[in-house]
Amino acid sequence: MAKKDAKKSKKKAKKNGKPKPTIAELLRVTPGFQLADVDPAATPGFSGDKKDAEKAMAAVRDEIDDLQERLYAGGRDGDGPAILLVVQGMDTAGKGGIMRHVVGTVDPQGVKLHAFKAPTAAERRHPFLWRIRRELPEPGYIGVFDRSHYEDVLVVRVHDLVPPATWSRRYGQINTFERSANAKGIHIIKVMLDISPDEQKKRLTERLDRPDKYWKFNPGDIDEREYWDHYMEAYQAMLEKTSTDENPWYVVPADHKWYARLAVQQLLLDELRSLDLQWPKADFDVKAQQKRLAAT
Amino acid sequence: MAKKDAKKSKKKAKKNGKPKPTIAELLRVTPGFQLADVDPAATPGFSGDKKDAEKAMAAVRDEIDDLQERLYAGGRDGDGPAILLVVQGMDTAGKGGIMRHVVGTVDPQGVKLHAFKAPTAAERRHPFLWRIRRELPEPGYIGVFDRSHYEDVLVVRVHDLVPPATWSRRYGQINTFERSANAKGIHIIKVMLDISPDEQKKRLTERLDRPDKYWKFNPGDIDEREYWDHYMEAYQAMLEKTSTDENPWYVVPADHKWYARLAVQQLLLDELRSLDLQWPKADFDVKAQQKRLAAT
Repeated sequence: MAKKDAKKSKKKAKKNGKPKPTIAELLRVTPGFQLADVDPAATPGFSGDKKDAEKAMAAVRDEIDDLQERLYAGGRDGDGPAILLVVQGMDTAGKGGIMRHVVGTVDPQGVKLHAFKAPTAAERRHPFLWRIRRELPEPGYIGVFDRSHYEDVLVVRVHDLVPPATWSRRYGQINTFERSANAKGIHIIKVMLDISPDEQKKRLTERLDRPDKYWKFNPGDIDEREYWDHYMEAYQAMLEKTSTDENPWYVVPADHKWYARLAVQQLLLDELRSLDLQWPKADFDVKAQQKRLAAT
Repeated sequence: MAKKDAKKSKKKAKKNGKPKPTIAELLRVTPGFQLADVDPAATPGFSGDKKDAEKAMAAVRDEIDDLQERLYAGGRDGDGPAILLVVQGMDTAGKGGIMRHVVGTVDPQGVKLHAFKAPTAAERRHPFLWRIRRELPEPGYIGVFDRSHYEDVLVVRVHDLVPPATWSRRYGQINTFERSANAKGIHIIKVMLDISPDEQKKRLTERLDRPDKYWKFNPGDIDEREYWDHYMEAYQAMLEKTSTDENPWYVVPADHKWYARLAVQQLLLDELRSLDLQWPKADFDVKAQQKRLAAT
């Protein structure tokens, strides 16, 4: 083992000799995963509180900034990688907070955020992946989906919006679609924000208590609570069938908003780090251009 | 005069009895305006330095946050106002910095940023406003144009990309187009970032001195410097012909990046304040819904 590697491995090891698992490792969905076993109030891989989480997030912001700019720079010639962050979760799970407090700290020039609503009549005339494909990020961008093609095996399955034969085919279609996105250089991070029904009730109650939150409330949100178990079944099936080696799911306990934000930021940072992003080399003669510029 | 008004007017008045002009008032382009008279290194309406500007910007961030969320909430039912911020300027004028440091502080869920590049072959087959119209913000959004339809009377005029008869018609077409956007509830803020040729030289030199900035440099940027006076002529004509009462231009001295950012933030804040944004009223019976929710 080279000296550098030995040092690195030592740094990662705990006293008992085992490396401490990262947040990503703890949240990744692998075979045998049971959603029902997740505690939505847990904070896997993080022992601090809200303030600590905010500090931890602030501490890596410059690194994310730097890596994101390299990603963007690398996309300028029309190739190079892109990232796609997919965020799913029940109503009030905190998707908006992820957009605001994680995505919102990244340079908006390099971000393409799309919130998928119920499909329009025109969209419904196309295959379900049609409107998704159009929003895939170009090289250099961080694409962000607030809801996604996964609604087509969640709400659609729960409410029988298409026949079972149709939605059951979609898991395989999604896996194929995501692999084809990988082949274009798109690295996908899939996040399910996992809240408890009690926490949802608390958050809906707040929306009804505060006039500045009324606009976020829809009476239908209460009706949907009756389908909670059905939704959890649909989520479990989704996680089993579409968490692949290439495009795994991460289930993020989300009763603590501050933990969910920290965890998603960490997943994004891990992905950016893994890309080994370098500044593009000059495709011109630097000295010659310096001379030309000086003469103006 | 009502007591409240009197107090407000007194607060605004200086010792000599004249109200202190706002940054917006100082930068607004009115008849007789001469671009050549603007000092790009000036900081109209602000007597502090870089640190003071950063503090001043941080001080209104919560207010902008609140107003932006009201704007967004108001757009939920498909009407309500939108804002469009148009940013123009010579290469290196600091458009990217405005995107990052002003637009980037706003919740990304309520922002639609579009950077207009040289039109593609497909776009050139349409009238010049075609691709612009498609990017107008929906109700509730802050649209941001990094370059815009004004390129069609700037670079296009300077380099004779269309006959003079064509570009000279465009000023009127733009004014009509913008009035029709106003009619849809879109409030337009038009900003020209005004830098000096010396400051541009400094910024281009930096791009050639730092390998992490090479990707931002294009040898063509140096060629364009020879056309500086032509560009200033085209800007002057644009300002004269398209700064209207409804949709005025603001010329922002931009040799100091920190001043330009402060000024654009201020223009955005002024616009948000002027809309008198209220939280939407509940379109459901709050008490009845609270009762239903409690029962779940």
